[in-house]
Parts: sequence; structure tokens; C-alpha cells
Amino acid sequence: MSIQSLIPKYICDIAPYQGGKPISELAREYNLEESFIVKLASNENPLGMSPKAREVILKSIDEIYRYPDGNAFKLKNAVSHKFNLNPDGLIFGNGSNDILELTARTFLKVGDEVIFSQHAFAVYSLVTQVMGAIGVKVPAYNFSHDLSKMFDAITSKTKMIFIANPNNPTGTLILKNELKAFLGKIPQHIIVVLDEAYDEYLDGDDKSVSFTWLNEFPNLIISRTFSKAYGLAGLRVGFGASNPEIIQFMNRVRQPFNVNNLAQDAAVAALLDDAFVTESKILNNNGKKQLESAFQKLNLSFIPTFGNFISFKVDKASQVYEALLKAGIIIRPVANYEMPDYLRVSIGLKEENERFIQALETII
Amino acid sequence: MSIQSLIPKYICDIAPYQGGKPISELAREYNLEESFIVKLASNENPLGMSPKAREVILKSIDEIYRYPDGNAFKLKNAVSHKFNLNPDGLIFGNGSNDILELTARTFLKVGDEVIFSQHAFAVYSLVTQVMGAIGVKVPAYNFSHDLSKMFDAITSKTKMIFIANPNNPTGTLILKNELKAFLGKIPQHIIVVLDEAYDEYLDGDDKSVSFTWLNEFPNLIISRTFSKAYGLAGLRVGFGASNPEIIQFMNRVRQPFNVNNLAQDAAVAALLDDAFVTESKILNNNGKKQLESAFQKLNLSFIPTFGNFISFKVDKASQVYEALLKAGIIIRPVANYEMPDYLRVSIGLKEENERFIQALETII
Repeated sequence: MSIQSLIPKYICDIAPYQGGKPISELAREYNLEESFIVKLASNENPLGMSPKAREVILKSIDEIYRYPDGNAFKLKNAVSHKFNLNPDGLIFGNGSNDILELTARTFLKVGDEVIFSQHAFAVYSLVTQVMGAIGVKVPAYNFSHDLSKMFDAITSKTKMIFIANPNNPTGTLILKNELKAFLGKIPQHIIVVLDEAYDEYLDGDDKSVSFTWLNEFPNLIISRTFSKAYGLAGLRVGFGASNPEIIQFMNRVRQPFNVNNLAQDAAVAALLDDAFVTESKILNNNGKKQLESAFQKLNLSFIPTFGNFISFKVDKASQVYEALLKAGIIIRPVANYEMPDYLRVSIGLKEENERFIQALETII
Repeated sequence: MSIQSLIPKYICDIAPYQGGKPISELAREYNLEESFIVKLASNENPLGMSPKAREVILKSIDEIYRYPDGNAFKLKNAVSHKFNLNPDGLIFGNGSNDILELTARTFLKVGDEVIFSQHAFAVYSLVTQVMGAIGVKVPAYNFSHDLSKMFDAITSKTKMIFIANPNNPTGTLILKNELKAFLGKIPQHIIVVLDEAYDEYLDGDDKSVSFTWLNEFPNLIISRTFSKAYGLAGLRVGFGASNPEIIQFMNRVRQPFNVNNLAQDAAVAALLDDAFVTESKILNNNGKKQLESAFQKLNLSFIPTFGNFISFKVDKASQVYEALLKAGIIIRPVANYEMPDYLRVSIGLKEENERFIQALETII
């Protein structure tokens, strides 16, 4: 009697998600000082969190023994107010990963088909497979979503489509009008999940206006996170916006206390600190230029990015990754994204980027 | 085209979990000062959290912008060391609710049967229904699990059995030898999930020894929480212990960053603070006596409890619950546990218990 025989095959076949290596892990493995290590592996905000979020956490700390508000009343109001959204059309998650998973768990049955792009965020494939649904991976065009091919991939079994905009790990962006035209073509019995984890890094005209599309597309679910520009990755909080009927069903699947109370309070404060997000974006734009000119100098090609990370091409990528680790620098291999010749580096502080560039130069 | 028609019926039919009313919600609804409100509704630790956990949170706060360690390395080591458990047989959750859900999501398919007791924790039924599995509720004996009837409920479709020991909301305890004999009778292709959220409140001989049974019963999963005696409900952290093969599969279903970094750090500190847990237990025993003698004085029958809460019988229970709310006291109705004549009160600080007793006396 083996345990495996008790578990559905689609669960047994899951390959676990590979996250960025934690600093503490590298320190243990290579016997390095943690303070020596530069981590540019998880698209975190190198400025840390908003100082206003920090203040609120210190105020809320003695409420930790209480269960969180399962309805996230204050955070829901704050998001609703900030983005002019119906509060009944909002759901909160333990990171936006939780939101992505909840969409799958609410709608998918064994055998349903789910469309996403080649090189798209690994979690789409994971949450699909856990449900016994079938992931349909559509070849990318120039590392970006090929919306036309994605449309052609629709069959009678298609239940859901995941789109990341900007996309991680390629950093590519779908233009607003193209995305809206695509949504207009999708039959409304197919749920479209639009993951905008990196929206805060976009400038002016590139910024998403998808919240204003919610009335037009009742099958649209938009996912956002506080883990990137808002600097709260460790606390785990994200949200979903959709029509209230979808949200009502997703809430039945949601764990009642899925978002911890510090995360709720910190997210409210972070949301109101526009200055911090602006500062983070400026730092990111400068770091992007710094890294791009270094790649050019080193004759390495890279994918122009709309996020807070850059994927670049390098010979013997996995060896370069390992050599960087030994130099105390953690970036991310993306072979599991079908990009074996690429590595992804998060955009860090000026001096962190410099450490990475110098080490890379030495290695190659 | 209705949204509902796109969602499996077993999802649409879920009745959402009813948690204890948050203090902030009552304050809004009845226009009360938050500081005036006594909440004895969610079996939280009235002493708050361990001061050592608090210290660690303050130290870790500036790491919030980093993703948590998805492998929970330090916490895994701490739990392994404290309870003498194989680290490969441990999994961590966003509260033990996450662990309970992961057991269901790893093993259950549509149509599988899952056995639990009448009056058992509501989450067992929820996580079963979300999977499209069938909950088989076995009548309780004197408010406690009727293990003999639960055994008789096994059919060829039975995939899982949930047992809470002590049980919430009844506070009843299954004796160790009876529980072990039951486990010995269960075929090993049926997974038994033993939820010991309240174990820290047990005295001496009553305390669970189930960790020592793991080698003997490869189909056993034990769930523990840091939300009760450890006082970390708001941070969300719990763990599961089982054989490494089961844990390995549950880890594939788990969200990679399901436990936030402050929760991981605080749990390590809380685990080492035995003095705080002992103090919490003493307070709880004293409060139990205080409430029990009040119920006796008021001629109200109650279920003798092994937890940090007491369910008591009262005429017009839902009206009494509402009247207590108006007096600024939140306890918990348990009509949804098939106990419409009962209310559950968490054991609080001496003065909180007193406020509750006085208000109850005035009302009835």
C-alpha cells in the first residue's frame, strides 16, 4: 500500500515551484556572511517597505494574538477608495499567489483547459495542474504573449486564460488597446485572469486602465500584489478585483483568515504612500539604465523590460548563476521558463547592481 | 450566461465559515468604543503573545520586503528539535486551517467520502466540500466523537477521517488509549487527520503523545497551531507532522510562500518560551473554574472542557448572544454546529470573564 497510490496522478506529477534562493540559505551553503550577500532574485523592492507601513506595523503589533478580520474591512475600503472600485468586487489573498490559486479553485474541474503563454509566470501552470486541469501553453512571440495564437488555442474545453502584464520573467508588455481588443473577442464563459503584479513600475501611458474595463467584461479577474513596489513581500498580501458575483464565489473557497492582520494594516498604509511608490519607480528606472548599459558594454543581449527585473542572455547560464552564487550574488535561473540561455536579475540599489555587474564581468 | 453556471455546484453550495465577530466590526455596528469591548469569541490567548515572540518580530521587521523562506528552514528545525520529529515529516501552514485544507487538496477527489463528527470544527466540512468530496457527519455521543460509530461509517469510498482532540466547540477529549486503538483499526489507505489545536491546554496525562505514533501509522497526519496557547492567531502559522512521503506530496500543493516571515520568526521564539505557555495554561485553568462556578450559580449547564473555551446551555441562545453584543461582549453562537441551545465563550482574563458573567446574569 503506497501513499502515492492514494493521491491523484495530477498531484503526484507536480514539480514544485522554484523560488529565489533565500539569503540565509546561501549563507549556510557557502559559509558566507549574510551581510555580504546581494539578493537580486525575487523582484523585491530594494528600498524595503514604505516607512508609513513600518509605523503602522509597530502600532498593530500587540494585536497579533487576535485573529485577523476575515473580511479585511479597512483594507477593502482603502483599495476601493484608491482605485474607485466596488468593495463587493474585491477579494484579498495571502499574496497574489493566493488570488491566482483561488481563481483556479473556484472555476476549474478535472479536464478543463487553461491557456497561458510560454515564458509566463510559473504559478499559472501550478494552480492549473493542482486542479487536474490541462495547461495549454501557447508559444510566445518575441518573448511576449502572442494574443492571436492564444485566441486560436480556445476549444470547447477552455475554462480560463491567464495573462501577465507586464510578464515575469520576460518583462514584456501587451499594449492596452491590443489587450482590450483581445478581451472583447473572448466568449464570456471563459474567465480571463489578468495578473498586474508589476503595474506600479509602469510609466504614464503604459499604466493599466483595466479596472475601468470590469463593467464591460464580467469574466475578467484582475490580480494585484503588495509584494513588489509596495515592498511587503514577506507579509503576504495581494488582491483580486472582479465582478461581485465572481468575488462572492471566490470568497467561499477562500480560507476565512487567509490575510494576517499586520499585512492588512501595513497594506492600508502602503497604499496611501504615493511618494514611496514614486521613489521606488525612479530608483527602478535608474537601475534599469545602469544594468542595460552594463549589458551593452559586456555585449550581452537582454529583453527590454517593463518590470523591476531584466532577463539577459549569457553563455553557460547555469554555470554563470553558480559562479555568481559563490561570489555572494543571488539572481535567478529561468531554464524552467524554457529560457535556458537566460538569467533574470532583479533591479536593486545602485551599489547592488554594481556588485552584480562587477562579478558578472569577472565571470564571463 | 450566468457566472454560477460556470462554477461546480459543490462550490456554489458552500456556506461561508462564520468566525468570531471582530472587535472593530462590533464597534462600528453598535457605535461602541473598541476599548470597552470584551471579545471572548475566537479562543485567542488573553495574555497576548509571548514577549520573546514580540522581541523577535521587532528585530525582523525590516526584512518584510523580502519573500519568506518557502522551506521555513529555521522554524522546521525548531519544531523538529522541540518535539523530536523528523524535519522531512513537517509542513508549515498559514494557520493550521491551511494544513487542514492541504490534506484535503492533496488526497480528495470528487465523490470521495470524508468522515467527521457531529459538532466537530466547521473547517473539516468546508475543506471537504470545496473538493467536491462528500462529508459524512457521524452523530456525537454526549457531545464527543463516537469512535465506534465513526468506524462503522467507513465505506469503500472513505478517503479521510478528521478528528479534533480536544474538540472545538464542545471541549471534549478522546482518551489516548481509545484513540490509539481506533487508529489501529483504520485501514492504512484511509488518511486520518488529527487536529490538536488545543493540546497545549491539556494537563499531564491528558497531553497528546500522538507524535510518537507517527512511525506506527503512516496514514496519520497531525495538525498543530500557533494561534491558541502560543498567542499568534493574527500572524497565521500552524504545522502538520506526518510521514515524509505524505509531506512531500502536500508540499507540492502548498503555495510556495504560504507562511509570512514574521510568523516564521515569531513561532520559533514562541516555541522556546515554555514559561509563557505554562502561564497561559494556569490562567486558563483558573478562568475555567471561575466560569464553571458562575454557570453553576446561574443554574446553567455546560460541557466540561479540555480547551480554552466553554460551551454552555441557555434559553433563547441567539437572543442572549445579541444582548451580550449590545453590552459590548462578543462570544460565539454555535447553532451552525447543531447546538442551537448553546453558546461558546472563550476563557479570558479574570476581569473579562467577570464582565461576561455580570452581563449574562443581567440578561437571563
